Amino acid sequence: MKLSEFSKVAIPKIETEMKAILHTAKQKGNDSLYQMLAYHLGWSGENISSHTQGKRIRPLLLLLTTGAAGGNWEEAIAGAATVELIHNFSLIHDDIEDNSEERRGRKTLWVIHSLPLALNAGDALFSLAFMGLSRLATFHNAETALQAFTKSAETCLTLTKGQHLDISFETSRTVTIDQYLEMIAGKTAALLSLSAELGAVLAHTNPENQENYRAAGENLGLAFQVIDDILGIWGNPEKTGKSAASDLLSRKKSLPILYGLGQKGQFSEMWEAPITPANVSRLAEQLKSEGAYDYAKEKAQLYTQSAVTAIQNANPSGIYAEAFTELTNMLIQRDF
Amino acid sequence: MKLSEFSKVAIPKIETEMKAILHTAKQKGNDSLYQMLAYHLGWSGENISSHTQGKRIRPLLLLLTTGAAGGNWEEAIAGAATVELIHNFSLIHDDIEDNSEERRGRKTLWVIHSLPLALNAGDALFSLAFMGLSRLATFHNAETALQAFTKSAETCLTLTKGQHLDISFETSRTVTIDQYLEMIAGKTAALLSLSAELGAVLAHTNPENQENYRAAGENLGLAFQVIDDILGIWGNPEKTGKSAASDLLSRKKSLPILYGLGQKGQFSEMWEAPITPANVSRLAEQLKSEGAYDYAKEKAQLYTQSAVTAIQNANPSGIYAEAFTELTNMLIQRDF
Repeated sequence: MKLSEFSKVAIPKIETEMKAILHTAKQKGNDSLYQMLAYHLGWSGENISSHTQGKRIRPLLLLLTTGAAGGNWEEAIAGAATVELIHNFSLIHDDIEDNSEERRGRKTLWVIHSLPLALNAGDALFSLAFMGLSRLATFHNAETALQAFTKSAETCLTLTKGQHLDISFETSRTVTIDQYLEMIAGKTAALLSLSAELGAVLAHTNPENQENYRAAGENLGLAFQVIDDILGIWGNPEKTGKSAASDLLSRKKSLPILYGLGQKGQFSEMWEAPITPANVSRLAEQLKSEGAYDYAKEKAQLYTQSAVTAIQNANPSGIYAEAFTELTNMLIQRDF
Repeated sequence: MKLSEFSKVAIPKIETEMKAILHTAKQKGNDSLYQMLAYHLGWSGENISSHTQGKRIRPLLLLLTTGAAGGNWEEAIAGAATVELIHNFSLIHDDIEDNSEERRGRKTLWVIHSLPLALNAGDALFSLAFMGLSRLATFHNAETALQAFTKSAETCLTLTKGQHLDISFETSRTVTIDQYLEMIAGKTAALLSLSAELGAVLAHTNPENQENYRAAGENLGLAFQVIDDILGIWGNPEKTGKSAASDLLSRKKSLPILYGLGQKGQFSEMWEAPITPANVSRLAEQLKSEGAYDYAKEKAQLYTQSAVTAIQNANPSGIYAEAFTELTNMLIQRDF
């Protein structure tokens, strides 16, 4: 089955499950909290489209893992809703922490409803994500549901550890590559790792295979992020949809830039001066000439290879293997 | 056993359990996130004392419920740590939402570390609270641990619903008494309700008795809050430690004030004008003369009676019954 076919069937079920979970957020005679969450999830407000809802990559990965590991993906739907709700609670809080006024082409929640109400709505979504896991008990025994709870809570902690590092980087003079890799392990890889692992847990495959899928998810996340870092500097603006070398202009401490700063060469000196659209392409070239592109490319290939090996070990099979492979390739096969 | 004797044994165990749970928040070579949480929990920083740690009322209520319901309180310690961590995560976020610069005589976390880092630290504590519940599996079966997870997640949602109403009240012109009672059911009663219920669940008492303890906790919370509202206007400043009629001065929409505004009498008119230390005692008298004191007193007695009845039905027994009764009385037997 192709990914597009699977998505057409699965996404409406994911949305229905999330709506069933969120229903409990309504107050007696006051559903304004629910409305805030519905807006953030792209169900209401201006310009609704599949774009405002996000791509639902994490729940799709979870469900396809369940299918490819020999389970019934329809019995994993509560887990899929949970990973998407966790992702979205963290976005609500990230938007406050990063002072971001726009997301997916619309105003962020705190801009519309004030910071206190948006912060609290994020907490409500966090709670709801965990309430979603209780719904696993319909199809799974208590041991399995408990495992899902424990792994989800651990992942949320890993997310916040990554976010703590990311916020701290903004004001810290030196960031090591090890610190950077730990940051992306939390911010990007942890939830993809959880999605694949939970998918395998809910397929009731053996622990060794759960670990294969978990490792696949984690390495996909790491590879995805490093590729994103490369594209953020040397990507084709027509393909990335961002301005050329946007990460240099925004002075984002991404992997190639940290590598370049570590060389203490000409790039490192140029970094101290203002970076403008006029000089940014010279900076990108200088960074490449000091080996940052090759370094990052090698890292990306390393993580990609680890992901591919883990997937081979997991040995996805059955009618969902094709869509599973298509989704995982989507994360790592981008031109750079 | 007296409450003071029990506290002397139990509180160090609660602290040790919380520290064991929080240990996982440390980063490789960077424990600044852990340090933020340790400061908030009163374990480090300036002026450390039992005061900076808070009274640990919720975990004590949980453990004493386990004891009084015939269970082994030492096997409930992970649940006790969890309710205290949930309480503290909500305080970190409340302090941001309310723009509060001080808590327990010290600067709040966001004032010291910036809003983004403090918001994220609250999320970390939220995650850790749930990770704490995983530790119940040492002494309890998966069904029990899963029940604890589900009830805790539901309670966190109820907390955020209460907080949503509370924040909304600040800018809303009319707040009904029903809305107010729903707000305090979330903000004050939900976590006391969870503490007593989890205590009973972890004692493996029957569902009917779990419900008795839950109802006791909830009504204790409601009674406590309404008494607090009365003391906030007519309390003796020497006993409350606050200025006279402080809730009038801060224009807090508490129960007696909402009752008074609903009378649309002289109090309601006086409320429109500035309230100052010079005229506040006249306002308090006027509010009393319009029946607000009697109304709130009756409500407090009603909730107190419901709590007492629920406790009688629960029938606490054994060597922990005395301390259990002492703790519950502490919440509701205050002069007003």
